Amino acid sequence: MLNQNMLAKKYLSIRNQTLELTQPLTAEDMVVQPIVDVSPPKWHLGHTTWFFETFLLKPHLPTYREYHPKFSFIFNSYYETFGDRAVRNQRGFLTRPTIQEVMDYRRYVDEFMLQLIALGTDNLTFLIDLGLNHEQQHQELLVTDIKYILGTQVINPVYGGHKDVPGQLPPIDWVSIDGGQYPIGFDGNTFCFDNELKPHEAHVESFQIADRVIAVEEYLAFMDDAGYQRPELWLSEGWDWLMKNGLNSPLYWKKIDNAWHYYRLDGFEKLNVYEPVTHISFFEADAFARWSGKRLPTEFEWEIAAKKIQPKRPKSANFLESGLLHPSLEQQQPGFWGSVWEWTNSAYSAYPGYRQTKGALGEYNGKFMINQMVLRGGSCATPAAHIRLSYRNFFHAYQQWQFSGVRLTETAE
Amino acid sequence: MLNQNMLAKKYLSIRNQTLELTQPLTAEDMVVQPIVDVSPPKWHLGHTTWFFETFLLKPHLPTYREYHPKFSFIFNSYYETFGDRAVRNQRGFLTRPTIQEVMDYRRYVDEFMLQLIALGTDNLTFLIDLGLNHEQQHQELLVTDIKYILGTQVINPVYGGHKDVPGQLPPIDWVSIDGGQYPIGFDGNTFCFDNELKPHEAHVESFQIADRVIAVEEYLAFMDDAGYQRPELWLSEGWDWLMKNGLNSPLYWKKIDNAWHYYRLDGFEKLNVYEPVTHISFFEADAFARWSGKRLPTEFEWEIAAKKIQPKRPKSANFLESGLLHPSLEQQQPGFWGSVWEWTNSAYSAYPGYRQTKGALGEYNGKFMINQMVLRGGSCATPAAHIRLSYRNFFHAYQQWQFSGVRLTETAE
Amino acid sequence: MLNQNMLAKKYLSIRNQTLELTQPLTAEDMVVQPIVDVSPPKWHLGHTTWFFETFLLKPHLPTYREYHPKFSFIFNSYYETFGDRAVRNQRGFLTRPTIQEVMDYRRYVDEFMLQLIALGTDNLTFLIDLGLNHEQQHQELLVTDIKYILGTQVINPVYGGHKDVPGQLPPIDWVSIDGGQYPIGFDGNTFCFDNELKPHEAHVESFQIADRVIAVEEYLAFMDDAGYQRPELWLSEGWDWLMKNGLNSPLYWKKIDNAWHYYRLDGFEKLNVYEPVTHISFFEADAFARWSGKRLPTEFEWEIAAKKIQPKRPKSANFLESGLLHPSLEQQQPGFWGSVWEWTNSAYSAYPGYRQTKGALGEYNGKFMINQMVLRGGSCATPAAHIRLSYRNFFHAYQQWQFSGVRLTETAE
Amino acid sequence: MLNQNMLAKKYLSIRNQTLELTQPLTAEDMVVQPIVDVSPPKWHLGHTTWFFETFLLKPHLPTYREYHPKFSFIFNSYYETFGDRAVRNQRGFLTRPTIQEVMDYRRYVDEFMLQLIALGTDNLTFLIDLGLNHEQQHQELLVTDIKYILGTQVINPVYGGHKDVPGQLPPIDWVSIDGGQYPIGFDGNTFCFDNELKPHEAHVESFQIADRVIAVEEYLAFMDDAGYQRPELWLSEGWDWLMKNGLNSPLYWKKIDNAWHYYRLDGFEKLNVYEPVTHISFFEADAFARWSGKRLPTEFEWEIAAKKIQPKRPKSANFLESGLLHPSLEQQQPGFWGSVWEWTNSAYSAYPGYRQTKGALGEYNGKFMINQMVLRGGSCATPAAHIRLSYRNFFHAYQQWQFSGVRLTETAE
Repeated sequence: MLNQNMLAKKYLSIRNQTLELTQPLTAEDMVVQPIVDVSPPKWHLGHTTWFFETFLLKPHLPTYREYHPKFSFIFNSYYETFGDRAVRNQRGFLTRPTIQEVMDYRRYVDEFMLQLIALGTDNLTFLIDLGLNHEQQHQELLVTDIKYILGTQVINPVYGGHKDVPGQLPPIDWVSIDGGQYPIGFDGNTFCFDNELKPHEAHVESFQIADRVIAVEEYLAFMDDAGYQRPELWLSEGWDWLMKNGLNSPLYWKKIDNAWHYYRLDGFEKLNVYEPVTHISFFEADAFARWSGKRLPTEFEWEIAAKKIQPKRPKSANFLESGLLHPSLEQQQPGFWGSVWEWTNSAYSAYPGYRQTKGALGEYNGKFMINQMVLRGGSCATPAAHIRLSYRNFFHAYQQWQFSGVRLTETAE
Repeated sequence: MLNQNMLAKKYLSIRNQTLELTQPLTAEDMVVQPIVDVSPPKWHLGHTTWFFETFLLKPHLPTYREYHPKFSFIFNSYYETFGDRAVRNQRGFLTRPTIQEVMDYRRYVDEFMLQLIALGTDNLTFLIDLGLNHEQQHQELLVTDIKYILGTQVINPVYGGHKDVPGQLPPIDWVSIDGGQYPIGFDGNTFCFDNELKPHEAHVESFQIADRVIAVEEYLAFMDDAGYQRPELWLSEGWDWLMKNGLNSPLYWKKIDNAWHYYRLDGFEKLNVYEPVTHISFFEADAFARWSGKRLPTEFEWEIAAKKIQPKRPKSANFLESGLLHPSLEQQQPGFWGSVWEWTNSAYSAYPGYRQTKGALGEYNGKFMINQMVLRGGSCATPAAHIRLSYRNFFHAYQQWQFSGVRLTETAE
Repeated sequence: MLNQNMLAKKYLSIRNQTLELTQPLTAEDMVVQPIVDVSPPKWHLGHTTWFFETFLLKPHLPTYREYHPKFSFIFNSYYETFGDRAVRNQRGFLTRPTIQEVMDYRRYVDEFMLQLIALGTDNLTFLIDLGLNHEQQHQELLVTDIKYILGTQVINPVYGGHKDVPGQLPPIDWVSIDGGQYPIGFDGNTFCFDNELKPHEAHVESFQIADRVIAVEEYLAFMDDAGYQRPELWLSEGWDWLMKNGLNSPLYWKKIDNAWHYYRLDGFEKLNVYEPVTHISFFEADAFARWSGKRLPTEFEWEIAAKKIQPKRPKSANFLESGLLHPSLEQQQPGFWGSVWEWTNSAYSAYPGYRQTKGALGEYNGKFMINQMVLRGGSCATPAAHIRLSYRNFFHAYQQWQFSGVRLTETAE
Repeated sequence: MLNQNMLAKKYLSIRNQTLELTQPLTAEDMVVQPIVDVSPPKWHLGHTTWFFETFLLKPHLPTYREYHPKFSFIFNSYYETFGDRAVRNQRGFLTRPTIQEVMDYRRYVDEFMLQLIALGTDNLTFLIDLGLNHEQQHQELLVTDIKYILGTQVINPVYGGHKDVPGQLPPIDWVSIDGGQYPIGFDGNTFCFDNELKPHEAHVESFQIADRVIAVEEYLAFMDDAGYQRPELWLSEGWDWLMKNGLNSPLYWKKIDNAWHYYRLDGFEKLNVYEPVTHISFFEADAFARWSGKRLPTEFEWEIAAKKIQPKRPKSANFLESGLLHPSLEQQQPGFWGSVWEWTNSAYSAYPGYRQTKGALGEYNGKFMINQMVLRGGSCATPAAHIRLSYRNFFHAYQQWQFSGVRLTETAE
């Protein structure tokens, strides 16, 4: 009974956190989809609710009645198992259901979820945990999508986040890791995604890795050295991407009167050079590393180093708790990681012995294991409770709209 | 003084009519742009206001101060004269200014417009008339765009409009017009657009023209005779358009349980076969005419016939006054035209002696005189005061989202 | 018997002229399709042969046996009546049949055509004439397509054509035409296309028209006056086309060391400023006219003027007879027209009383009557016997690869 | 002196082998580029020659004079170091230089290469070896490109290759490999590409691997079980690719009268079910494996297994020596691999300690290490002397035009 109460409380707490993230938005902000990667905030609210309805209530609560016959079509993200669904790039055309109707849907589902939790069915623990982790993933996506929606307006509104204070850039220290065989993957008994399994050994050669991610100041040096104009620094597809899109800076950057500014959730401002550089694509991270005479770490190297240096994530880096959406590097010290997602040079792929979940849930992770790169760590937009050392995030090499940055590595001679 | 009062009243009346059209909408409906042809209702409200600000207040009211430095960028539709502007296909991403802010903008501009009108400057009559006619054009576009936004939702909401009553289909009578030379174009002293000028003579051969537009029932016969499957009935580009888009009916039509339904602004319903067929492209109108063994009229034939048969437009066909967004043919009798725009077989082009207006206003009509077809008449969505016999509407041959229909003609033997 | 002999001779003469045009080409030149408008020369040879096989031999010569079961699929251009066919934009991938095999196909069909002609069937006159006129149209297309293939090579080869001699630019005289009603269309008893019928009256207002087309020197003045950089001179779609394609000159022009050069079939050279400007789109012709303070003539004005001024076409302008692919304006004098196709401001449309031919041949002209503009006159690439005053050529407003130029007109005050 | 003679002989032998491969082609076949992946055979002949001219003759033979100032622009494939070059998807429009002119270019460069070789400069060994390996890579591409050009014709010509004889399908044996640490990469002192370096250790878990690749008969079972219609078997991007392209079989397959046929270089035929299935994309290989309840091997597993089972490649599988372009599985026994390239589940990436070559040659391999999958083995189209165990081929997951097949693996319980 105690457990059920705690679970119910946790459920409500996480669900409410999602709503809180949309508080600063106007109705207009809730509806649009400026690029295919970005979903309307309203859609996130509906989709996460649909997830509980579909995977928990419908199969496991006999008294549950479907809320609306068309909502599954509208709020199914990509599960082929459930048949036809609204086309992804048309989410921004769905004016109906309205925000109010989506809120009603949330309340309806939450009520039944509390009933289901109260039943205390043991074998649903994993599914409820999955639903809550799924909700947390969408909390993070909400922040990134909101930033894109607001950050690409002609008139940039302020969302929130405390102002940072001027800082200093600590020098990079290089941590040496001996070559050898190391354990990789999730090895606990709490929740993890199937792609973190199963735990296994990996061999790495000796390497050195920076003790912090790259800051804006360092990235500016790359730009000043014609980094965006020299094809020899770029992967072939990266250079094509650059030329086709006419890019010459990270996302949200804009030069005004010869000074670089950027959009942060607390407004459109001059660069703070002490912050981690973020909103860069894999292509940019990789070009920066090549220019530096270094390289990106593999996800194994990253995991091994993270485990060695600093097993805990600093509390202050998480926006939802600290209110700091853009902590300077100083403020986020002494944590090793957690302010930006870090591109690794590992393509997203199955671990040895990976077993894709049966049924619709098997579509959650496994079917994306192609043409995406693994990011490790977590960002200021990631819920703190959702971060762990074995977590494998993954995006396409061209995507910039995540809070993604870069850490350098080199193979030991 | 009297004149100024009347003009002020007229100004406010027309401006308010625009707002009235958006009353049934939710905030969500006001923001989206599902296809490039459709502008967000919020944008229409801002753009028509920008028009008065740009062409009246800024140049002619010295005390006027620009409302917002970025609004011209956001609400300029296509005037190159005013420099850079937001890309047309991204109007649906503009969450800011909000609806409320646009409403404030309208009030601000309206106040100054009333000041300007009170000054009674004679030489502004044309510009104010132009602004009001421009507003009326956008009232019509608002109705068509709203219909598209609501009609393409997964869950179709009701907008409004009285229900029609079952009718009967009056037989088509064929009106004979003798060949010869006829006057064409606007020849009055009230407002008209530059493309209706100058009045001139045109020669036509003898022809016969139907006394009403085609009804749904007749169009169904074309569809049942495999009209959408026979390339010989279609223009080459029309057939390509059909194949590429996989179409087999007018816009908003959907077959459910083997029965055709369509979306009307009063809801998603079974077809009313007595209504004029509408939301068809020029390609469809042309294919239907070829299947009928007839052809579309030229715009000259249409104007000559309209003048002869019935000089006045029936009052009942206009939605804003009658509340009938889909009058059956019987209800709209005895008017010859006015329930749907009628595709003609005339490409949109300059009349002899056409003089493009100087300056930015020259961009209003003249720069679109290529690859568009003229439509004549007016629809239930056209403000009654905005309809006239010499009015030349124009759209691309593939566009279906207007209230566009078809009338048959044939050359006399 | 005499007639048959003459027809046979004419048949062979025209068919051989086609082959002659391909003499300067290498096998490589015969195969490629650099843009969708351009067909491989080899394909032209096959397609014109297929035309005789399909419309003459198969239906009218009982002893005829189809040459190859797949050739109809390969060489059908756009006749839906005959079912599936090779996709137009993939003609440049068809390495088989080889050139040699196409030549064999031509000989085979020619042999049977001579048999059919010898039978002297009277009612085939029109069809044979049509086939020969069709062959002549493709002779012209061969020249334009060959020019595109050779003119867009990195290493430009010489095709042929006599060198021109330096000339002088005669001043433009303005011919006045009184407003009134004039006969339009083909009114003879020899061959014409269905789109030139039926002859009818048209009314025009008084106008003035230039007695020659615009020369390179005059077009350069437009370019030097920032003609390609000023949106107010262009139709809206024209400006979009310009921006999208980054154009700033007619096709085949290239600036080298600050001097304009162009590719002509006799090589890559400095501009000859006395030649008619050619390879310009309708958009460019229209912008040039607006810059000049004039306009393009309608096709009716053109026909009326051409009839009045100079009923005969100068012999020297035709390349096949004169060898002059680029006559200077002086050399082509005193002919009024015939050196370049002249864009008119008339959309391609049916004449009153137009009757589309029954069956597959109805697809020849009628199904293209949308979104194309009429060109009048004829160019140095048009077979002289194929030119006539009522001839209506038609292309899309953006197409530059024809020998197309511009003549100015203005409405009389 | 002996060495130089041998090298000269080897040089000529490999260069001539390239020409031999084009012997069965017509001039028309040499020019076209039906998809962007396929280069015209003529272009391959020029590009491989340009490679020797650029990397050997120009920098290392002072007496050498560039053959043609435009050839570097035309025949540079992707080296940014050498500046602008012809756009890749327009290679099929280059009619000039002609085949004959390319042959002259080859002879010219060969002559000077023999002079350079005669000089016996020791430090050029690697570069000459690289040029010859590059030539061999293009020999293989020539075969695959020729197959695409001929295999997509409406009329499929025969290229060559001995006919196969009916065979039998040997059962699959599963070879067990113990988990542990194994050496990976090239560890010899002969030529290898930089991407095979440096040799290092990798850890794998215990696994079982099939002793032969999948045959047509087995793949048909997947197809008969609705393999191409079930989204749950496919990666998300794979399913999108399938839907977008409307595919339901490997490349070159066509159902005629309910029986599957395919194009082989010896003609269009009924399937031989005993052959390895080939011309499948990674997406298809992966879906087949999932359907089988197995998975694809990683490139490390493949290399470890290949080393264990069968260190030598069977001579008979190479087309150039055996004339067998499509050996049945029986004929290619007892070799473990070499008849088709085998998709692995490893993304193409740098080995630990990888050093990209300095200068232009660094563009050879390194800049493609994103969004491509490694294939191992070699196919009947690969020159036998060009195959080795550590060879890493790489293509995009959607590409089918290579001789690519599939081998199954599973992790040991």
